[in-house]
Amino acid sequence: MTHSAHPPGLHILLDLHGARDLDDAARLESILRAAARAAGARVLGARFHRFGDTGGVTGVVLLADSHITVHTWPELGFAAVDVFLCGAAQPDLACDHVERALSPTRATRTRIARGS
Amino acid sequence: MTHSAHPPGLHILLDLHGARDLDDAARLESILRAAARAAGARVLGARFHRFGDTGGVTGVVLLADSHITVHTWPELGFAAVDVFLCGAAQPDLACDHVERALSPTRATRTRIARGS
Repeated sequence: MTHSAHPPGLHILLDLHGARDLDDAARLESILRAAARAAGARVLGARFHRFGDTGGVTGVVLLADSHITVHTWPELGFAAVDVFLCGAAQPDLACDHVERALSPTRATRTRIARGS
Repeated sequence: MTHSAHPPGLHILLDLHGARDLDDAARLESILRAAARAAGARVLGARFHRFGDTGGVTGVVLLADSHITVHTWPELGFAAVDVFLCGAAQPDLACDHVERALSPTRATRTRIARGS
């Protein structure tokens, strides 16, 4: 990676319950790209896929600073978001943006220092 | 997503210390694709990037069953791998494959049930 600070990064697992519009892949990509910008991260690329059966979406924004991913289950109102950022990028700012955009009734963040 | 079983999935954070050949993006992509197959997961696509300064690699294999990612710091001998799989796929089998391929001197797995 580009940064050698130790530990390499902070990983936040963000679980969203009671969220809406979880079947809109284009909107989810837009939200995750904006979340990366909010955190001060640099986007290398993105790939999103919508499943035809349930409308669930799986997507990733690959970053110079690691990654942000989302996997959704519209039928459960559930989204699993990962924000793993190294260096100076601020993962909580990315999580704040995603939470505001998806308006869950309940959200949990689990923070894990990677490489420590 | 394609599976509606609750909780949606098991996420394993695999940290590898003392690993080698962490600057070879093509090899890492091959390892992660094989890990997905070992776990019984279906690959939708992949994207890998090697940084010119340190040789670190950031990469993702996007799955119908969620994702496998890797971020490496060759200068530290450190790799952060994520295996998040839902449905019938078996994330520990993917981790076993990655560990065998990268031969770390120390490995830790943190297991987190998502959406429970």
